[in-house]
Amino acid sequence: MSDTVTISIDAMGGDNGPRIVFHGARLALREHDNVRFVFHGPSEVLEPLMTEFPELAAVSTVKHYATVIEMHEKPSKALRTGRNVSSMWGALQTVKDGEADVAVSCGNTGALMAMATFCLRPMEGVSRPAIAAIWPTTRADIIVLDVGATVGGDAQQLVDFAILGAAMAQALFDKSRPSVGLLNVGTEEMKGIEQVKEAAKILTERDGAGFRFHGFVEGTDMGKGTVDVVVTEGFTGNVALKTAEGTARQVGAYLRNALKADIVSRIGALIASRALTALKRRMDPRSINGGVFLGLNGVVIKSHGGTDEIGFKSALDLAYEMGRFDLIDKINVALKRFGPIEPATAEPAGQEKQQAEQNA
Amino acid sequence: MSDTVTISIDAMGGDNGPRIVFHGARLALREHDNVRFVFHGPSEVLEPLMTEFPELAAVSTVKHYATVIEMHEKPSKALRTGRNVSSMWGALQTVKDGEADVAVSCGNTGALMAMATFCLRPMEGVSRPAIAAIWPTTRADIIVLDVGATVGGDAQQLVDFAILGAAMAQALFDKSRPSVGLLNVGTEEMKGIEQVKEAAKILTERDGAGFRFHGFVEGTDMGKGTVDVVVTEGFTGNVALKTAEGTARQVGAYLRNALKADIVSRIGALIASRALTALKRRMDPRSINGGVFLGLNGVVIKSHGGTDEIGFKSALDLAYEMGRFDLIDKINVALKRFGPIEPATAEPAGQEKQQAEQNA
Repeated sequence: MSDTVTISIDAMGGDNGPRIVFHGARLALREHDNVRFVFHGPSEVLEPLMTEFPELAAVSTVKHYATVIEMHEKPSKALRTGRNVSSMWGALQTVKDGEADVAVSCGNTGALMAMATFCLRPMEGVSRPAIAAIWPTTRADIIVLDVGATVGGDAQQLVDFAILGAAMAQALFDKSRPSVGLLNVGTEEMKGIEQVKEAAKILTERDGAGFRFHGFVEGTDMGKGTVDVVVTEGFTGNVALKTAEGTARQVGAYLRNALKADIVSRIGALIASRALTALKRRMDPRSINGGVFLGLNGVVIKSHGGTDEIGFKSALDLAYEMGRFDLIDKINVALKRFGPIEPATAEPAGQEKQQAEQNA
Repeated sequence: MSDTVTISIDAMGGDNGPRIVFHGARLALREHDNVRFVFHGPSEVLEPLMTEFPELAAVSTVKHYATVIEMHEKPSKALRTGRNVSSMWGALQTVKDGEADVAVSCGNTGALMAMATFCLRPMEGVSRPAIAAIWPTTRADIIVLDVGATVGGDAQQLVDFAILGAAMAQALFDKSRPSVGLLNVGTEEMKGIEQVKEAAKILTERDGAGFRFHGFVEGTDMGKGTVDVVVTEGFTGNVALKTAEGTARQVGAYLRNALKADIVSRIGALIASRALTALKRRMDPRSINGGVFLGLNGVVIKSHGGTDEIGFKSALDLAYEMGRFDLIDKINVALKRFGPIEPATAEPAGQEKQQAEQNA
């Protein structure tokens, strides 16, 4: 653990421009006095902002990268046109060069994943990266991965994700032995698909990577917080994440409509407004903002593209925790302790291209 | 459409015994005067209930089946011990024999699916059955399938599910051309897995089965009600359904806690209690109770095992609608109109495992 945490920031991603990025960084700086920033983007845009935010200027540097990756650019095109020259690439390169502990971008997810994989490379012993989401539950926050990096996944990948997610849970929740569950369609051993069963077998037999394997969990277990880490492949994880977001919004809409139904309800809602505001804050997606790319030689945080300074500050808080904990070192130790999985379960190399395409 | 709808009932499934089944049937009878029931179970249990519910006795018959399938019995064992002799089998046999329009059971889902598939057999042109769920949204109810019958699914199956779900939507929502969406991890055409893309291609090119293909939808589209029918394979569908249930419960818990936080909030909640009760009713899982097994030569409704008479009555209402609409005939017509999918897109048997893996 280094005394200072340096966060490498792509200042140009996102729908709301670089100003919210600087605003968010200023908010983060007020909370953590041992944080440093490296901002990446066109210097003609960033230097005036540095002048405008003198507290930041004292602890930050700017690296000039002229190109900006568009929010809807295809990952393949972003990689072709943005490699070495874009603010997104710059933020990753600074981590690769060891000049920062973690990278943060609110740019295009697909492009960021493609560039991060290309620039930072998968860690030795990890076949493919995952995106981990922090999921609020009635108990405490938990980690769910993969929520969209890897469509499909064999047993080896699911086991890798368990190790990665557990290390992140150690960092974030300060738990020495977080619990890990495999997402399945039932809790009986007979149910589910081959690779999920196979991963469960490996996780039951092996030990030593610093977590407790809980067994299978179901969709309902996520809101309950049954385990600290829920592992699944990216298609199902992405659908689950977005379904939960949609359901929370839906229930919020029901509530608003119900409380506007008649004058008495309106008065009641007015009186209970403090409680309803607390609920709203509890459900505010800005308070949890950041998918964490795991499994690469460097931690990358993806902030929502449409976030404001509060949301971007949450992403920086998350980056700070990951950097402070030396997450990559901890994952490397865990991977070594768990040991390699026998080649029988590993994926044949020929599928790589096809899978990468699915991913794009 | 026959004038009378006859519902075949497994009276012994469920956690709460046959009394709630009779109670639920009495409630349904009060709403639909052209409904008939056939109850299946041990006659020494059912005959006294018939005496106790004289309104039902007038429109119902009892068929004696001595065996009861336990809630946690493995499907294979249930099939071995319960074939021909269990109340669950009896309910299916009565539909098969054409003596009833639709079967309802609140027994064990796996056993019911195994028995239903064995007894009623898949429809010609449908490779595997699906379970369709009715999903409340901020717009109106929609149908989501498959939520658990088929783990993994090739393009052909997804296309079949689209046809089945659309026919059910016609029946339930009284729409001549419901919209159908394929669940994916993004709305851009490039995203998603092979079989989902392939299914989209077939659904875009073909027409004639009485629905409008909307394209891809994401997890957030379910709560919004973007389309009338959302199609996915059973692993993802099951996780999505249970994640939504869990999230709704979680938000409910937040709300309850927020409204109990201090005395002012409590008073506000008391005044707004009518609105909050309306919200609670809106979110009551009993008001929507019933997974519909589609793709077999007979419609089967699976009610929750732990339901009460209100929930069982909802399942009977759903059965009534399906029976009144002659759903099986309508599906057969739609399948014929859509026509068979050329063998090129059908999956060679050898790939089944691999595709299931990608799917996970």
